[in-house]
Amino acid sequence: MHPIEELRHTGACVLVEGTLKQSPPEASGQVVELHVTKVVHCGICDASVYPIAKKKITLEYLREKAHLRPRTNTIAAVARVRNCLAFATHEFFQKHGFMYVHTPLITTSDCEGAGEMFQVTTLLAGADAAAAGPPPPSEAQLEALRAAASAAGSAVKTAKEAAKGSGTSGDDPALKSALSALGAAKSELAAAEERVRSVGGLPRTAAGGVDYSKDFFGQKSFLTVSGQLQGEIYACAMSSVYTFGPTFRAEDSHTSRHLAEFWMIEPEIAFADLHDDMQCAESYVRFCCTALLERCPQDLALLSKMYDPAAVDRVKATASTEFARCSYNEAVDILLKALADNAVTFEYPVKWGEDLKSEHERYLAEKVFCRPVIVYNYPKGIKAFYMRLNPDGKTVAAMDVLVPGVGELIGGSQREERLDVLTERMVEAGLSPETYSWYLDLRRFGTVPHAGFGLGFERLLLFTTGMENIRDVIPFPRWPGNCT
Amino acid sequence: MHPIEELRHTGACVLVEGTLKQSPPEASGQVVELHVTKVVHCGICDASVYPIAKKKITLEYLREKAHLRPRTNTIAAVARVRNCLAFATHEFFQKHGFMYVHTPLITTSDCEGAGEMFQVTTLLAGADAAAAGPPPPSEAQLEALRAAASAAGSAVKTAKEAAKGSGTSGDDPALKSALSALGAAKSELAAAEERVRSVGGLPRTAAGGVDYSKDFFGQKSFLTVSGQLQGEIYACAMSSVYTFGPTFRAEDSHTSRHLAEFWMIEPEIAFADLHDDMQCAESYVRFCCTALLERCPQDLALLSKMYDPAAVDRVKATASTEFARCSYNEAVDILLKALADNAVTFEYPVKWGEDLKSEHERYLAEKVFCRPVIVYNYPKGIKAFYMRLNPDGKTVAAMDVLVPGVGELIGGSQREERLDVLTERMVEAGLSPETYSWYLDLRRFGTVPHAGFGLGFERLLLFTTGMENIRDVIPFPRWPGNCT
Repeated sequence: MHPIEELRHTGACVLVEGTLKQSPPEASGQVVELHVTKVVHCGICDASVYPIAKKKITLEYLREKAHLRPRTNTIAAVARVRNCLAFATHEFFQKHGFMYVHTPLITTSDCEGAGEMFQVTTLLAGADAAAAGPPPPSEAQLEALRAAASAAGSAVKTAKEAAKGSGTSGDDPALKSALSALGAAKSELAAAEERVRSVGGLPRTAAGGVDYSKDFFGQKSFLTVSGQLQGEIYACAMSSVYTFGPTFRAEDSHTSRHLAEFWMIEPEIAFADLHDDMQCAESYVRFCCTALLERCPQDLALLSKMYDPAAVDRVKATASTEFARCSYNEAVDILLKALADNAVTFEYPVKWGEDLKSEHERYLAEKVFCRPVIVYNYPKGIKAFYMRLNPDGKTVAAMDVLVPGVGELIGGSQREERLDVLTERMVEAGLSPETYSWYLDLRRFGTVPHAGFGLGFERLLLFTTGMENIRDVIPFPRWPGNCT
Repeated sequence: MHPIEELRHTGACVLVEGTLKQSPPEASGQVVELHVTKVVHCGICDASVYPIAKKKITLEYLREKAHLRPRTNTIAAVARVRNCLAFATHEFFQKHGFMYVHTPLITTSDCEGAGEMFQVTTLLAGADAAAAGPPPPSEAQLEALRAAASAAGSAVKTAKEAAKGSGTSGDDPALKSALSALGAAKSELAAAEERVRSVGGLPRTAAGGVDYSKDFFGQKSFLTVSGQLQGEIYACAMSSVYTFGPTFRAEDSHTSRHLAEFWMIEPEIAFADLHDDMQCAESYVRFCCTALLERCPQDLALLSKMYDPAAVDRVKATASTEFARCSYNEAVDILLKALADNAVTFEYPVKWGEDLKSEHERYLAEKVFCRPVIVYNYPKGIKAFYMRLNPDGKTVAAMDVLVPGVGELIGGSQREERLDVLTERMVEAGLSPETYSWYLDLRRFGTVPHAGFGLGFERLLLFTTGMENIRDVIPFPRWPGNCT
């Protein structure tokens, strides 16, 4: 039925029956072969027009063929690694009694001001429609309507006096008709003014701003940048939880390390301090690496061979070796000493009180500790308001996990559980305690010490696969100007 | 340190050390008791202001306290059931070799026109800013700018002729100055016209429509209504996959069965037909029910006792009994016969070629088959273009799983893998084959028979918990006017 030749084209899909046999010794490069007795299905593929028929195709080109690229060795291997890590994530947290919580994607609160947000709206349909509709009334048209309304008002006045004179006031037909005309003129004017105000098809408030009370949720709403605050709600109610879901940043970032849509894992541990938090982060990453080595050895080997010879060893070392730990103070001292010794040069200066840059983080993980390192107790000025203030009054109980090849993989902290301290830090950060009163309620009513962290899932994929570009480790990457 | 009284208030959070002892026989209603030797932590709670201190609180009231409601028995039990079903979902598909794929949330394609979509945008920031900025130029101001530009043009003409006369043409200073003035006048006019065109702060095309080329992704983009089409991409490349992620509908629906944001599970099975699809759906639902009975018996018992006495038995029966199956033709005959026998009355008529309404679906599952039933082979006119056309030319290989208490739980189909038939169905449905050429590529290059289904996760929760309102089975429900 199908000429045997068609089964052989790159991209053809076949379902066959036959006998699996050991290959003869002279067949090099293969262990078994299938002796086909029946072709059940053959989806043919014309290699002359198949966009990915060639042997050597660049990853850049494949990004433009997102619907065909999982048919390549590389992207398929990445997809299997991704699947393995995703399931290992669930296994790890379930095994340790964490509950999976679906935090919301659409939100009205801007957690920690973590970045620019996408707006979610149904208002633009009106702006689209406005383009198709008649233009808004001109000032002259408005003036005419105002004059008409004013004339109708005078007519009512005249009619009222006439009715009073004749004693028919209540049901004088002329007055009634004048009143009805005035009503019509007024509502026509109001409608015209409303059309001018809802300029471009967007509803407007009296002050001229976009009237979000007319939007789907009755207020301005966004795509979430983090599920942490909602995770805390569940951790403070039911003990440890984790989230695993999509997160968004509307940043005009075109680097190989940023996506507009990516997946995050955010555990929140009840009755935990910073030490517990670091322990959990290390156990989790090492569990993932161990699972990967067991379940996807061939995929890791392929990717390592093609893209980063160090990748497999990095995963093995991570699985088997304890992470290093060092305080932010120690980290700064180490970096300053390395600079003083001329052991390294950095683009950015190292200074206590400033955040570590990627080059500093990678130097610590790759050159100083030669393995993942957890840096903890950062200056409060560079960290979020919800991180627990240390007794020194200068640092907070924050921690970052830095790994070779990637830099920051995880950021976490013990959360400030003291109502008074949290309120003060919030005000310092310029946030309104009224807006976050629900968050303060978690401390007001039965507060509990807790800690958590966030891991960008694609960062974990970069670390384990050795892929260079984050756009190649998510099935359908979104970045500025690209949503295919 | 903490007066013992404070430990006893509803809402207090305590961490204590002590000895667990068997209760004496006279302590009714409890099996063990804790003899506290040390209070490690006490988060106090002032019951007089604690919003959920009372014993009897309605579910409606709790929806307004989304940040405190997981502290109640009901919502906590639902959360544990949800966690159990989510992990069971991953276990089931992983066990059967399905790969978990993260399909995108932000999309530019409107799959199957499944419903109204939210727009994702960064353009409204401009509309917000426009309100704060100066008003756009008036027609009189524009006219003045046009006149100025025209005058500047005449001045250039005059200067040119003068320069030509004097033979200095190329570098005549008067001409240069006139040209520069013309340039300035033209760009001032263009800027003013652009400000008029970008009415309300939105960028506009020449035709007056919103200019989405200026939006974040360079085109109009939305929140997904289904990951199916992208799931097919991976199934056709790498064999069976599943998605499990958030999905959105911007419908103005205030019922107890609809959410604007909800979670869906969408497996896509390679080399599968409708029969395989039904088998998979049944196995999956029964696996979930079995896991739930094993792992959350107390939560099921509590919810069943408080809200739906039939719920536990329904879950048990589903776990242990094969689903019924009946074709759409048979289903219509059964319903018509029941009507003819006066065994039932329906609000909506039953007619071949029309979709089954919820009342018909529930009658079939609850009264006719008394268990979940899979109805298959629906008329093509009421189903999506991608469902495989049956040899009869009238029906498609679609199936719905209907369950007691809820109605439709799952909708699925074998997908049309024949390029010519799919293209024809697409045109019939009013869709452009050009827009979906990537989807057609899956059939053009190495097509493979495949089938899949979608399950609304919250529907599964309603079915298993017996809760009435979908807003109570998701941690942070979103519906029109509500996003807290």
